[in-house]
Amino acid sequence: MRETQIIERIRRMAERGHRDRSLVKTIGDDCAILRPKVNEDLVFTSDFVLEDRHFTLETHQAADIGHKALARSLSDLAAMGAEPVFCMVSLAVPVRASSWVTQFYKGLLALAQRFSVTLAGGDLARFDKVIADVICCGRVPRGKALLRSGAKPGDRIYVTGELGRPWRRHLRPEPRIAAGLALRRLGASACIDVSDGLALDLQRLCLESRVSAELTSDLPIAHGASLQNALHGGEDYELLFTAAPKRRIPKHIAGLAITKIGTVTRARAGQIKLDGRRLKPLGFDHFQ
Amino acid sequence: MRETQIIERIRRMAERGHRDRSLVKTIGDDCAILRPKVNEDLVFTSDFVLEDRHFTLETHQAADIGHKALARSLSDLAAMGAEPVFCMVSLAVPVRASSWVTQFYKGLLALAQRFSVTLAGGDLARFDKVIADVICCGRVPRGKALLRSGAKPGDRIYVTGELGRPWRRHLRPEPRIAAGLALRRLGASACIDVSDGLALDLQRLCLESRVSAELTSDLPIAHGASLQNALHGGEDYELLFTAAPKRRIPKHIAGLAITKIGTVTRARAGQIKLDGRRLKPLGFDHFQ
Repeated sequence: MRETQIIERIRRMAERGHRDRSLVKTIGDDCAILRPKVNEDLVFTSDFVLEDRHFTLETHQAADIGHKALARSLSDLAAMGAEPVFCMVSLAVPVRASSWVTQFYKGLLALAQRFSVTLAGGDLARFDKVIADVICCGRVPRGKALLRSGAKPGDRIYVTGELGRPWRRHLRPEPRIAAGLALRRLGASACIDVSDGLALDLQRLCLESRVSAELTSDLPIAHGASLQNALHGGEDYELLFTAAPKRRIPKHIAGLAITKIGTVTRARAGQIKLDGRRLKPLGFDHFQ
Repeated sequence: MRETQIIERIRRMAERGHRDRSLVKTIGDDCAILRPKVNEDLVFTSDFVLEDRHFTLETHQAADIGHKALARSLSDLAAMGAEPVFCMVSLAVPVRASSWVTQFYKGLLALAQRFSVTLAGGDLARFDKVIADVICCGRVPRGKALLRSGAKPGDRIYVTGELGRPWRRHLRPEPRIAAGLALRRLGASACIDVSDGLALDLQRLCLESRVSAELTSDLPIAHGASLQNALHGGEDYELLFTAAPKRRIPKHIAGLAITKIGTVTRARAGQIKLDGRRLKPLGFDHFQ
């Protein structure tokens, strides 16, 4: 199959999917074109999914990888309290993999449809391993995006759902878009998605907010997981957020249990304590 | 060097560079945040640069690859007549390559500075080969983007600069941003950048416009190149555009010679003739 035929097939699949009315032009030109609405901010993220690092072709079907590639970026939108608008997909695959490419896009577009994401463009290349880079754009009312940098000493720390689930979960991670939108409306002070482990992502949030944190060991640990999994395991894709004590945070948001796991403090920026003892983040570092 | 240290270094380098005032937030959160201006459309493109496909570590220095990765995306903005706003960079490199990463960003940020592009975010991962995916966002006045789809029978076909230059040129391709902005103001009817060969890219433009084209062999062939190089060689990064006969197109735009190379016709969509004979595009196809 020629490249133009593969791209034509992806384009037809995309055109059967969701089309946000802000998108003036999608696949078929040098660029996609977006006409912004009045009083909205746009948020952007990009995430790699790499063969033998984030998946293997033995453990994941093409459709799972398509799902996962989009889910990782959508999880970043969720953490900003943003509503998804569009994605662009750069995909490299080995030669003669046209049916694999179709299945990848089926998995990706099924998730896109559920969250009203328009596939607006991308790039297709040949490479000896599978590489996907997905860019997502979302919208928030002007000035209302949830940031990592808004946590204040005294704020409570919460997390959605459960932490440390074993790897089966990772096949089809579920981005917490509805929870993110609700948290924005509830007035959360800061938010991040837990992609590299609770401890490391909490440290990132604390560093951007120039605060520290004290956790209790009373975490919402998934069935079959250990406290270590819950603290340092990656790819939970839950939302970790903070809110001022005066904010009423419900016990459930968008069908997910919400657990209070600690308090923001004013010790050295980025310092995390668990039950009063210093905790060293062990989350995923690509370069260690 | 730890991942967080490398990212911190990139962040400092980026913060010394251009910062577009529309960007409310850049590196350091889950997403970058853009506050659109009134009456502007935003255009988006993404392009891969892959080791052993677009470059080798023997022929290209890290800074060349950084330059090239951004230049490819900027060339797509040029083809839309857009003014660059920001880029996001997803980069995967082998382990212990932190000085290589720094040099890559030096090359990329030097080009970004020249074109007032803000580095707004991205992703960094470890992989056994070098992979970069650069997303660029540009702005155009509402409804004014140059499209591939606007060519009409009778329009004249033009190209900027020279075609078919040998590979030395490819080390530091120069995106034709100023020419694209000028063409938009001059009222060009359609435009595409020549990345995969004149014949193939002209065919793409014709297919999107549902027209055909007749070329003369009187092309602006670069010194040392053949007609075949000019027709089918890739990576020229010149702009190929059409304009109605009534439009006055100057001989030079933004320091580049402009050459009339043919006419848009109403034969079968996508058909290209050269001096009256059918021309079969041989441009780059990743899957052949």
